[in-house]
Amino acid sequence: MHDVLINTKILVKNNEIACHNRKLLKDKGIFAVNLMSSPGSGKTSIVEKTIVFLKDRIKIAVIVGDIQTDLDAQRIARHGIPVKQINTGRSCHLDAHMIQHTLPCLFEQGEIDLLIIENVGNMACPAEYDLGEDTKVAVMSVTEGDDKPLKYPALFRASLRLLINKVDLLAYTDFNMEKARQNALAINPELTIIATSCADETGIAKWVDSILLEL
Amino acid sequence: MHDVLINTKILVKNNEIACHNRKLLKDKGIFAVNLMSSPGSGKTSIVEKTIVFLKDRIKIAVIVGDIQTDLDAQRIARHGIPVKQINTGRSCHLDAHMIQHTLPCLFEQGEIDLLIIENVGNMACPAEYDLGEDTKVAVMSVTEGDDKPLKYPALFRASLRLLINKVDLLAYTDFNMEKARQNALAINPELTIIATSCADETGIAKWVDSILLEL
Repeated sequence: MHDVLINTKILVKNNEIACHNRKLLKDKGIFAVNLMSSPGSGKTSIVEKTIVFLKDRIKIAVIVGDIQTDLDAQRIARHGIPVKQINTGRSCHLDAHMIQHTLPCLFEQGEIDLLIIENVGNMACPAEYDLGEDTKVAVMSVTEGDDKPLKYPALFRASLRLLINKVDLLAYTDFNMEKARQNALAINPELTIIATSCADETGIAKWVDSILLEL
Repeated sequence: MHDVLINTKILVKNNEIACHNRKLLKDKGIFAVNLMSSPGSGKTSIVEKTIVFLKDRIKIAVIVGDIQTDLDAQRIARHGIPVKQINTGRSCHLDAHMIQHTLPCLFEQGEIDLLIIENVGNMACPAEYDLGEDTKVAVMSVTEGDDKPLKYPALFRASLRLLINKVDLLAYTDFNMEKARQNALAINPELTIIATSCADETGIAKWVDSILLEL
């Protein structure tokens, strides 16, 4: 209980800064997406595909959160768009304060229509930290099992969209797509669920269209 | 920094309780394994295979950590061995206090040679919390990408063994086994690395033999 009480105080402070970030982003006409999942579910590949599909139509910038390394930022930088890596050290999630410090560096690099924030790979804590984004997106891959919405409900409850990724691997797993959908909708009936694959581009057009509608 | 300072205090208290757990387990002649990985890398399947391979030779008990649900405990209970589910609520990891409260219930169910603790699916925080176990084991699956040791170094640094799981899916991914080994050994040169698959039982005998040597 002690741990949770301390976290509540941290969250109140976080949410104040998140409100500030949200106002700043709104004033600049930037739509911000917070992409969350477990490690290795394909967030960076989804960011890359989103850039490939959209970069000739809108201005995109990316913030990448990782405990260590700038490997993901290197992958994204190859697409020639502004990207900032945040290394969280021992922290298992991004918080609003980190985003607040990072936004000015991105703003210096020109106008932005869409800001994608790729959170630290973790199904538990990132969902609890408002960053000031407009929308949260959960990603789960079919290799992780169809029970994940039930085991990590906060992530699926906080999100408006769920990308079920790596569907090209479906035939090689015991993942039950219908059960996964039922589990996700039992936690959050408002979820829009899109099956995606970055290997064969299944669902990527549907995903980017759903984002374009928000801009 | 504030967050980290608070965590340091929590860790000191945790480690005191972990020392108590370790002494209790040693006095009872129980070898304890703490199994850690991201969500969906196959920890529960590895626990099940370990039980199948060893339950006629030694007495096994299991503690399963999850934020919510007792789905994993249900799977393990089918094998007819003592199992206790810990639901951590909002906490993204097990801690020594939770284990301390759970051990008496397991001890009531008879003698134990091997206690397997399946931690909450999370590559970040569990590695920081000593539970009083004898050894930590990291699991990563080939679908998660070969960069994970570099991105989540604490997990790989704290562990003596690394199971690279789901190798039956290797042909369908861009996972580079040699690169994964290099990345893991760059973080921790002492790691024993075993490639495993619960689908075709690759490496399971090697894994269970490595545990039997410790008993």
